Amino acid sequence: MAQVERLVQWANETGEAEIATASDLVGGAAYDEHGEAVSDATMEKAIKADAVMLGAVGGPKWDGVPYDKRPEAGLLRLRKDLELFANLRPAICYPALADASSLKRELVDGLDIMIVRELTGGVYFGEPKEITDLGNGQKRAVDTQVYETYEIERIARVAFELAKKRGNLVHSAEKRNVMKTGVLWHEVVTQIHKDEFSDVQLQHILADNCAMQLIRYPKQFDVIVTDNLFGDVLSDEASMATGSLGMLPSASLGAEDENGRRKALYEPVHGSAPDIAGRDIANPIATIASFAMCLRYSFDLGGLADRIEGAIAKVLDQGYRTADIMQDGKHEVGTTQMGDAILAAL
Amino acid sequence: MAQVERLVQWANETGEAEIATASDLVGGAAYDEHGEAVSDATMEKAIKADAVMLGAVGGPKWDGVPYDKRPEAGLLRLRKDLELFANLRPAICYPALADASSLKRELVDGLDIMIVRELTGGVYFGEPKEITDLGNGQKRAVDTQVYETYEIERIARVAFELAKKRGNLVHSAEKRNVMKTGVLWHEVVTQIHKDEFSDVQLQHILADNCAMQLIRYPKQFDVIVTDNLFGDVLSDEASMATGSLGMLPSASLGAEDENGRRKALYEPVHGSAPDIAGRDIANPIATIASFAMCLRYSFDLGGLADRIEGAIAKVLDQGYRTADIMQDGKHEVGTTQMGDAILAAL
Ligand SMILES: CC(C)[C@H](C(=O)O)[C@@H](O)C(=O)O
Ligand SMILES: CC(C)[C@H](C(=O)O)[C@@H](O)C(=O)O
Repeated sequence: MAQVERLVQWANETGEAEIATASDLVGGAAYDEHGEAVSDATMEKAIKADAVMLGAVGGPKWDGVPYDKRPEAGLLRLRKDLELFANLRPAICYPALADASSLKRELVDGLDIMIVRELTGGVYFGEPKEITDLGNGQKRAVDTQVYETYEIERIARVAFELAKKRGNLVHSAEKRNVMKTGVLWHEVVTQIHKDEFSDVQLQHILADNCAMQLIRYPKQFDVIVTDNLFGDVLSDEASMATGSLGMLPSASLGAEDENGRRKALYEPVHGSAPDIAGRDIANPIATIASFAMCLRYSFDLGGLADRIEGAIAKVLDQGYRTADIMQDGKHEVGTTQMGDAILAAL
Repeated sequence: MAQVERLVQWANETGEAEIATASDLVGGAAYDEHGEAVSDATMEKAIKADAVMLGAVGGPKWDGVPYDKRPEAGLLRLRKDLELFANLRPAICYPALADASSLKRELVDGLDIMIVRELTGGVYFGEPKEITDLGNGQKRAVDTQVYETYEIERIARVAFELAKKRGNLVHSAEKRNVMKTGVLWHEVVTQIHKDEFSDVQLQHILADNCAMQLIRYPKQFDVIVTDNLFGDVLSDEASMATGSLGMLPSASLGAEDENGRRKALYEPVHGSAPDIAGRDIANPIATIASFAMCLRYSFDLGGLADRIEGAIAKVLDQGYRTADIMQDGKHEVGTTQMGDAILAAL
């Protein structure tokens, strides 16, 4: 996040943007400071902001804290209280990194998928969600997956709108052969498609088959829309297939208000990598690319976003690599040095 | 399945085994005949049998049938009523097919993972599972994921027992950072490990990370134990990584009774491929390999199972390929011809 702060400063100083920032704690750091994964005061600041940039949360240090205070609870509260129902996770393959993928180069070279994950519903938030002691050493744990029509409608619209500006193809992934939420999902997506987006191509796919097809032939996909839990698993899988893990950003968006403004949060897809914290070797590119998405979606600064993405591609072409993406014959740099290189390219 | 029937006949005629068979309908075929995805009479036969061999179910022809009569309902009833809680899904890479994987050869060559999927619990069977009309064009769909301690204990034991005969390593995959069933899963697996299998290595892994790691470096896994829904998605993903889809068998096992016998069902991991039904071009190897598992787990005929698996490897080495796994310079054969080749190798 320190590298993003440098970019904000650069943008303000050069007059490219005019962005005021404030920082605060979430996750384990917030727990250590306030005893909560995110405090009410922090939530208030987040709600007032035009956009939230988030680092990753979690780590073994907090494995023992109570369930409702674990680091992830802070992230989930941010998503839920800001009503960020649409999580956009691009799975793109940077050409300079195509060989870093586990998949054969020809399968991922030029890959550009957008996964649209529902983020405020499903099994993440449905009630009951509890563990009951049944006596005799037996417990019973319950999670509840709930979806209402309007939740599926609005996420479907986001997916179809995005597809219109991209490859005009949406895959909708669910398990309607086993889950009632899948049955409703399929029904509502079909209806929205028929009523509002019949010019976009729609394919229904079972989530297990989708997990297969992402490996078999990922380029068959343009936009994938799916629920919170399948989106969690499928987007991690897809990001790994690109070979660009540590590189991938995400945007979580709310509904537009009457002024066309929407709450938004931007975060890398990768986790917090507690094993390398504080050593100035983490790859800052996913967070910087998340800031580019922030400029595009929250500040209407698409041109500047393009330039930042261009700078990322350029430094990769120049051979700069953090340790996680290091390849033979390239130039290994630390976090700050990668920030330097991107600023220089800009 | 016709090729398996030929193998049974061969085994009976040569005195290798003494197996009586009876066949019946399940899925779409049963619906067409009886108006049910599996009839009570068929269920009775299945319950009496020492083992059930199952072809795949499902197809677009039955997209419109009522939810509780869809083809999948027949399969789910078989699993549930036979109490087949342990689904064993080997993801192995046949050396002759390593180049058919989307993953780079060095990542999958010699790969041998066993996925142990819980099969009679979780979101597949939990109640409520329903769609409610809320009026105003809004509906509410609910699925419920439920796990009790004993269900996790018994599947964990299956995984640890298998690991002892293999690489001595179990990964337990869940989403304890979001799901209460994941919290209980983690707790119970940890306890069983401590009390009964402390000599086996245990790793806990979040399901989304597992989906990543299966692509990044699949050989890090030996046995993976996970719930019904994650097992569905992760096993499809893993089977695709091997390059051997169309080749992979599965066993679904119940608890041992006082005589050490257990109900069991064997089926290919792949689906019914309705687009090529009846054309004698489908790959019979996954079903034949499922029969080998049947001989091993239900009839204690491990030696014969080994020979059948050896015959499969041999015909692949000889260059026989069905259309789905056809490669340059190999010899393309149909379903019956592949059966011929395997019988000849035996
Ligand atoms: C940290 C965790 C709660 C989160 C999730 O499951 O949504 C993460 O895996 C993600 O994908 O953003
Ligand atoms: C056909 C379907 C109900 C089934 C499942 O979801 O379990 C299948 O995908 C499987 O993996 O065996």
